[in-house]
Amino acid sequence: MKYFEDLEVGDVTAIGRHTFTADEIKAFAQRFDPQLFHLDEAAAEASHFGALCASGWHTAVIWMRLMIDHRRGLVEAARARGELVAAIGPALGLRDMKWLKPVYVGDTIEYKAEVTGLRTSGSRPRSGLMTTFSTGVNQNGEPVISFVSTTFVERRPEQP
Amino acid sequence: MKYFEDLEVGDVTAIGRHTFTADEIKAFAQRFDPQLFHLDEAAAEASHFGALCASGWHTAVIWMRLMIDHRRGLVEAARARGELVAAIGPALGLRDMKWLKPVYVGDTIEYKAEVTGLRTSGSRPRSGLMTTFSTGVNQNGEPVISFVSTTFVERRPEQP
Repeated sequence: MKYFEDLEVGDVTAIGRHTFTADEIKAFAQRFDPQLFHLDEAAAEASHFGALCASGWHTAVIWMRLMIDHRRGLVEAARARGELVAAIGPALGLRDMKWLKPVYVGDTIEYKAEVTGLRTSGSRPRSGLMTTFSTGVNQNGEPVISFVSTTFVERRPEQP
Repeated sequence: MKYFEDLEVGDVTAIGRHTFTADEIKAFAQRFDPQLFHLDEAAAEASHFGALCASGWHTAVIWMRLMIDHRRGLVEAARARGELVAAIGPALGLRDMKWLKPVYVGDTIEYKAEVTGLRTSGSRPRSGLMTTFSTGVNQNGEPVISFVSTTFVERRPEQP
């Protein structure tokens, strides 16, 4: 992860992509969102969605998983180059979570995050606050999810 | 579920409570938020959290699960009385998700939802839009999560 000082508003990060299978849509819903249109093909066909689709929470937590994997890759690459890496997190929360379109079985969602704000932190002088606009877009170019999150990012250590 | 016409701003619903175990905190994190302070006790003790704690997304999706169970109970009770029940959903999204305190192993979170807004829907004349402020509070009375969501609720069928 870049240090706070190295981030710029407008930076866009491709976080990764994920294809949603029927089995994982049902497994997530069984545990966390057991509504019939996330659990059963026939019931979903009869619903306003028209076909089995993922819980909006499922679409959101896959973003989280891909983001963690993406950050881990950056850390490993930086360490391999002998560079210091900035700590990131925790997140304070998020705003304006929108489930814009259903995510159906077989849809591949591509997630991106754009830096939209950077400010210093009063409570944590060693960190800055990064605001990010995240989106997930399906294989037809349609946005299915978007939200805004704010996370602490470590500032560059002072030179001795 | 009540029909849109029977809802009032200020209505508070006790959705349910959930005690977070170490095993489920780790299982959720392994799949969706594999950060060390959600996965490993020793690493969590060395982190700014000081002990193993749940992913904020985990705290959120447990709200969803309890809400579905709560609604199902209302539907079954109404049907047992021979009453009609209103359809609810889908949710359009949510705003202002705040993770206010960590949720540690053994914490019991009590979730509530308060109706904060009611308006008719232009796009779906047979439904209204209900805005809800939801909170989760731990056994010490400390809020750990809050957010605002907006959901379609069916209007009372017209009398023949």
